[in-house]
Amino acid sequence: MRRDTPVPIVLDCDPGHDDAIALLLAAGDPAVDLLAITTVAGNQTVEKTTLNALRVCTVAGITDVPVAAGCARPLVRAPIVAGDVHGESGLDGPRFGEPRVRAVPEHAVELTRRVLTEHPEPVTLVPTGPLTNIALLLTRYPECASSIREIVLMGGSAGRGNRTPAAEFNILADPEAADIVFRSGLPVTMCGLDVTHQALATDEVVARLAALGTEPARMCVELIAFFADTYRRLWGFPCPPVHDPVAVARVADPSIVRCVDAHVVVELRGEYTRGATVVDLDGFPDRPVNARVAMELDSGRFWDRVIAAVERLGRRGPAA
Amino acid sequence: MRRDTPVPIVLDCDPGHDDAIALLLAAGDPAVDLLAITTVAGNQTVEKTTLNALRVCTVAGITDVPVAAGCARPLVRAPIVAGDVHGESGLDGPRFGEPRVRAVPEHAVELTRRVLTEHPEPVTLVPTGPLTNIALLLTRYPECASSIREIVLMGGSAGRGNRTPAAEFNILADPEAADIVFRSGLPVTMCGLDVTHQALATDEVVARLAALGTEPARMCVELIAFFADTYRRLWGFPCPPVHDPVAVARVADPSIVRCVDAHVVVELRGEYTRGATVVDLDGFPDRPVNARVAMELDSGRFWDRVIAAVERLGRRGPAA
Amino acid sequence: MRRDTPVPIVLDCDPGHDDAIALLLAAGDPAVDLLAITTVAGNQTVEKTTLNALRVCTVAGITDVPVAAGCARPLVRAPIVAGDVHGESGLDGPRFGEPRVRAVPEHAVELTRRVLTEHPEPVTLVPTGPLTNIALLLTRYPECASSIREIVLMGGSAGRGNRTPAAEFNILADPEAADIVFRSGLPVTMCGLDVTHQALATDEVVARLAALGTEPARMCVELIAFFADTYRRLWGFPCPPVHDPVAVARVADPSIVRCVDAHVVVELRGEYTRGATVVDLDGFPDRPVNARVAMELDSGRFWDRVIAAVERLGRRGPAA
Amino acid sequence: MRRDTPVPIVLDCDPGHDDAIALLLAAGDPAVDLLAITTVAGNQTVEKTTLNALRVCTVAGITDVPVAAGCARPLVRAPIVAGDVHGESGLDGPRFGEPRVRAVPEHAVELTRRVLTEHPEPVTLVPTGPLTNIALLLTRYPECASSIREIVLMGGSAGRGNRTPAAEFNILADPEAADIVFRSGLPVTMCGLDVTHQALATDEVVARLAALGTEPARMCVELIAFFADTYRRLWGFPCPPVHDPVAVARVADPSIVRCVDAHVVVELRGEYTRGATVVDLDGFPDRPVNARVAMELDSGRFWDRVIAAVERLGRRGPAA
Repeated sequence: MRRDTPVPIVLDCDPGHDDAIALLLAAGDPAVDLLAITTVAGNQTVEKTTLNALRVCTVAGITDVPVAAGCARPLVRAPIVAGDVHGESGLDGPRFGEPRVRAVPEHAVELTRRVLTEHPEPVTLVPTGPLTNIALLLTRYPECASSIREIVLMGGSAGRGNRTPAAEFNILADPEAADIVFRSGLPVTMCGLDVTHQALATDEVVARLAALGTEPARMCVELIAFFADTYRRLWGFPCPPVHDPVAVARVADPSIVRCVDAHVVVELRGEYTRGATVVDLDGFPDRPVNARVAMELDSGRFWDRVIAAVERLGRRGPAA
Repeated sequence: MRRDTPVPIVLDCDPGHDDAIALLLAAGDPAVDLLAITTVAGNQTVEKTTLNALRVCTVAGITDVPVAAGCARPLVRAPIVAGDVHGESGLDGPRFGEPRVRAVPEHAVELTRRVLTEHPEPVTLVPTGPLTNIALLLTRYPECASSIREIVLMGGSAGRGNRTPAAEFNILADPEAADIVFRSGLPVTMCGLDVTHQALATDEVVARLAALGTEPARMCVELIAFFADTYRRLWGFPCPPVHDPVAVARVADPSIVRCVDAHVVVELRGEYTRGATVVDLDGFPDRPVNARVAMELDSGRFWDRVIAAVERLGRRGPAA
Repeated sequence: MRRDTPVPIVLDCDPGHDDAIALLLAAGDPAVDLLAITTVAGNQTVEKTTLNALRVCTVAGITDVPVAAGCARPLVRAPIVAGDVHGESGLDGPRFGEPRVRAVPEHAVELTRRVLTEHPEPVTLVPTGPLTNIALLLTRYPECASSIREIVLMGGSAGRGNRTPAAEFNILADPEAADIVFRSGLPVTMCGLDVTHQALATDEVVARLAALGTEPARMCVELIAFFADTYRRLWGFPCPPVHDPVAVARVADPSIVRCVDAHVVVELRGEYTRGATVVDLDGFPDRPVNARVAMELDSGRFWDRVIAAVERLGRRGPAA
Repeated sequence: MRRDTPVPIVLDCDPGHDDAIALLLAAGDPAVDLLAITTVAGNQTVEKTTLNALRVCTVAGITDVPVAAGCARPLVRAPIVAGDVHGESGLDGPRFGEPRVRAVPEHAVELTRRVLTEHPEPVTLVPTGPLTNIALLLTRYPECASSIREIVLMGGSAGRGNRTPAAEFNILADPEAADIVFRSGLPVTMCGLDVTHQALATDEVVARLAALGTEPARMCVELIAFFADTYRRLWGFPCPPVHDPVAVARVADPSIVRCVDAHVVVELRGEYTRGATVVDLDGFPDRPVNARVAMELDSGRFWDRVIAAVERLGRRGPAA
C-alpha cells in the first residue's frame, strides 16, 4: 500500500469549518497531490461554500489548485443547509477579507472529469459534503469510473446519525446521490461519525495550532472555537469533532484510519430514517461487501498530520 | 395559442414501436419543427433505442435532424427494459437494413442544451421515454430552464398503471427523474395512459396507412401488427394503443388533446406503488397545480394528423 | 350458488349515509338473514356511528337484531373521520328523535365471535367501514376463521381513490386492518369504488323512494339529499353514489355484482399512496389471486332490491 | 421511588434463553410480585414459548403463578422466529422432562386484563418478547390503560440493531405492535441493546451460578452455555448478553438501570430499517419525550440480584 509518490486527489467539499481544515490538510500534506477543489451545496448554499473555499485558499496561499463550483441542490427533493452548525456564512468565526483566488468558470463536474481524463494515473475522489457532484459525474460520464482509483468520503454512520437520530448530515442532504455512489461498484471508503467522533479538537490540539502563530493556524483556531461552541450547545460535546480531515488523512496514510469491509446501503424510503447508512458489520451472507467502513482513528497521528500540514502552509504565506 | 410558425421541439425517445410513430409524426407534421432527436434507455438499452431511432430516420428519410444517444440507466437503482412488449431489438416486427443515418458524437444532454442555447426562441421538450435525460439536463444545467417553453411528456396515469397495477412504464423506469421534472416549476403536460389508451390503432387506421403504399407507411403497419399482438397477449386489448405520438400531437395541435390542471406527484417510496403518478383531479386546496394532465383525445383528428405526416414523409423517400 | 335459505350475515358498519341504507337493505331483504350489527369508528367516532345505527334501527323498526359498538380507533396511527362528507353527526340531514333501540353491552368483536360460534352454519361478514373490528377478530380469535363463510366488504378501488387520489376512505382509515383481511386467506370480495360509483341515486330512484311514503323511505330520501349535496360540492357528481348497500346486494344476489378474481394488496408505506388497494387485473403470474373484485353493477336490479327492502321495512312501522 | 411492598407485574415473554432467566428473576426477587406469566410468538412459535415457560416454572417450582398463551403471530405481516439464536425448541441446551405445571385456558390478553382489573393497585407490564399481546390488549381494552402503572420492556436500540443492522429482534418481529405501545401515552421504559449488551454473563457469573448447585442454577448455566455459543458464532461476542432480565431488574430496583427521557418512534416503512427504534437523545424541540430509554447498567448489582433470585428459588425445589 506504501507509495513513494503523493496520491492524486480531487477534494469535493462544502466548507464548512471541518471542510476548511480538510482543505488545509489536502493542500499541505506531502503524501497527497491536490489536483482540484470542487464545491457543492451542503453546509450552506453553493455560492457560500465556493466563496468559503476561495477564502481558505487565500489565507493558506493555495493559488495553484483550480476551484470549481458544482451543484446548487440535491438530485431529488428540497435542499437543506446546516446554518445552525456552521453559521450564516457557512464559515462563521474568523473574519475574511476579499478572496484573492478566483474560481475557474468550469462546473465542478466538468473540472473533475477533465482532471480524471488528463491525469496519467487513476485519481482518488475525496468528497466531504453531500455526494451530488460525484453522483452526477458517475451518471453523466460513466466512462470516468475507470479513471477513479477510489472514493474516500466523509459521511454516514454505522451507528446513530447527527442530523436526525438515524442520519448523518452529508448523506441526509442527498440520499439518492449517496445511493448512487455506494452502488457504483467503485471502491468506496466511508469515514463516518463512527470514526470522525474520535477526531476531537482538544485544548491541547488547539494550543499546538495556536503556537504555530501563522495565518492559517490562526484561522484554524478561530474555526475550531466557533465549532466547539456549536457542538457544546447542540450536542453537549466537550470538544468538537473535526470530521472532514479524517477522509483526507485516510488517503494520506491509510494506517491512521482502521477500516472494516462491510455491506452499506442508504435508506431512501423510511419515515424517520431517510438518509441512514445501513451498515452490516456482521457479515450476513446475503449482504455482499461494497465498502470499507472506517471504525477507528489513531487520533495522535491524525492531529500530528493535520498540524504539520498547517505548519507547512504557514511557511509560504497567504495569496497575494 | 394559435401559431403561424411551427413549434420547435426536441424529441427525447426510446424507440419502441410507438416512439417510432411519434418520430414520424414529429418529423412529418408541418406544425412542428423537429430540432433534435435524443435517445434514452427504456423500452430497450440505449444502444438499441439509438439504433432504432437511426433505423426509423433511415426509412423515413429524416437526414437533417441530429440524433444523439443519452443515458444508459436511470438516475437511481437498477434499469428495467420492456423486452416483453417491444421485443429483443426494441423494435421487433419490421426488417431493417443497415441505417444510413449516423448519430452525432454528442451526449443527448449536451445536444439538447446546445439546441436550447442556440435556438432563438424557447423550445418544447417532448420526452416519450423515461425522463433520465431531461432530469439530468435540469440538474446539470439549471440555467437551461429559461429556454424551455414547456415539457410535453408521454408517461404516467391518473388511474391504473400498465407495468404494475399502479405505475406506467416510463415513470416506473426512472421515478426520481420524473419527480425532478414534475417539481421543476416548468410547465409540464402529462399525456398518460388516460389519454393514450384512446389512441387505438384500429383496423381502419391500419388500412389507411397500408393504402399509402410507401416505405414509412409499410413500417408503421408492421410495427402496429407486432404491437397489436403484444397488447392482445399481455393485456387483452382488441387493438393496440399507440402512446407516444399523442404527446407530439398535443404540441402540433393542442385542441386534439383536452387537458385539466392538476397537482401531480410521483410516489418514490411505496412498496407496491413506486412510480405511480398521484394526480389530484379534485382540486384539494393543499395540492397546488403543477401540471396539465391530458384526459381526452380527439382520436379522429389524431389519426388524421399521424397519417398525413406519414404520407408527407413517404413522398421524399428513404435516406440514401 | 343459489340458496333456498337466506344468507346469514353480520353487518359491520360506521353509519354514515350509505351505511344507513346498507342497514335497511340488510334488514329488509329476504335473501339475507341479519344476525348482528356492529359499529366502528370511521365516518365519525364510534360513539356517533353507534348512535346512528340505533337511530336507523328505530326508524326502521329493527328491534330484533343486536347492535354492538366496536373499536374507537384504527389499529395503528391516528384516526381520521369524514365529517366533511357525512356531517358533524355522521348522519346529517334527517332529524332523529331519541333512539328506542339500545346497544348490547358486548364489544363488537365479542358479539361477532359469539354469533360465529353459535350459528349452525358459516356466516358472511359484511364490513362497510374501516376493517378494524374484523382485523381484531381475526387476530384475537384466529379459530373463528373457520366459521366465516366469506367477507364481502365495501372499500378500496382498482382505480383512483376518493379520500386521496390513490386511496378510498375505508381502507385509508385503517390500512393495516385491511392488510390483515386481504392476507387472511379467507374468501374476500371487495366492492370498491369501481362498482359503487355505478350505484348512483338518480332522481328517478329518489322519486320511487319518495313515493313509498313511509318513515324509512322518508329517511332515505333525506339522507340521499344530504349526500347528493356533498358529492356535488366535493367531487362534482351529478347524483350521489350510494356505496355500502352494494356489498349487501352482492350477498343477497351475487348476480347483481359482477366480479373478477385478482391479487389485491394494500399499500402501507407510500408517501402519497398509503391505503391504496393495488389490484392486479392482468393476472401476472407472481401475484396469486386472493380476492374477488367487483367491477360491474346491474344498477337497475340493485335499486329494485334496495327499494323493495325499504318498502318491506315500512310496512312494520318504527320501533315503539 | 422506594417502595416497601413488592411491585406487582405481569411478565409477557417468549422463552427464549434470556426470557427464562428473566422469569427466574421475576419469580425469585422479593421486590417483585409476579402476578401472571403470558407468552407470545417470538423467539419461537407460541406453542414452543409456552411449553418453555412451563418447563422453566417446573424446574424452578413456580406453581402459584398463572401462565397463559397469547398471540401466535404479529399484528401485520408474516411472523419471524429466531431459531438460529435459541435453537429448534426455543430453549435448546438443557434437557427438560415433561412439565408439571399447566397453562390456564385463558388467552394471554384476557388473563392480563383480569389481573389488571382485579389487582387493587396499578400493575407494571414487563414484555420481553414482541409486543403483540400488549398492543392487542390496548386496542381491544383501551380502558385497561388506567390500571397499567408502566410498561418496562426489553426491546429496541438507540444505536445499532441485532437482527438487522437497524432493528432489534423484538421490535422487528412486530413493529406495528411496538408503534402502538410507544404511542399509547402510557409511561414506557425501553431497555434496549444499549443497556442489555452490558449484561454479559461472564465466566465469573457462570461460576457463581454453578456454585449454587441447585436445579434452577444448573438450568441457568446450561442456558448460558448454549447462548454463549450462539453469540460467539453469530456476532463474535466473547460472552453472551442476557437481555431480558434487565427489564425485570429495572422494575425491582430502578437504580440499577440508568435511563434518559427521549422521544422514541418505530420505523414502519423503511426499505432497510423497518423495526428500528428511532431515539432522539438530543432533545430536538419537535420531538416530545414519550419514553425513558435505558442507557447504563450497574452490572455488578444486576448479577447479584439475578443470582440471589436463582438461589432463593433453588431452596424450595422443583414442582412436584
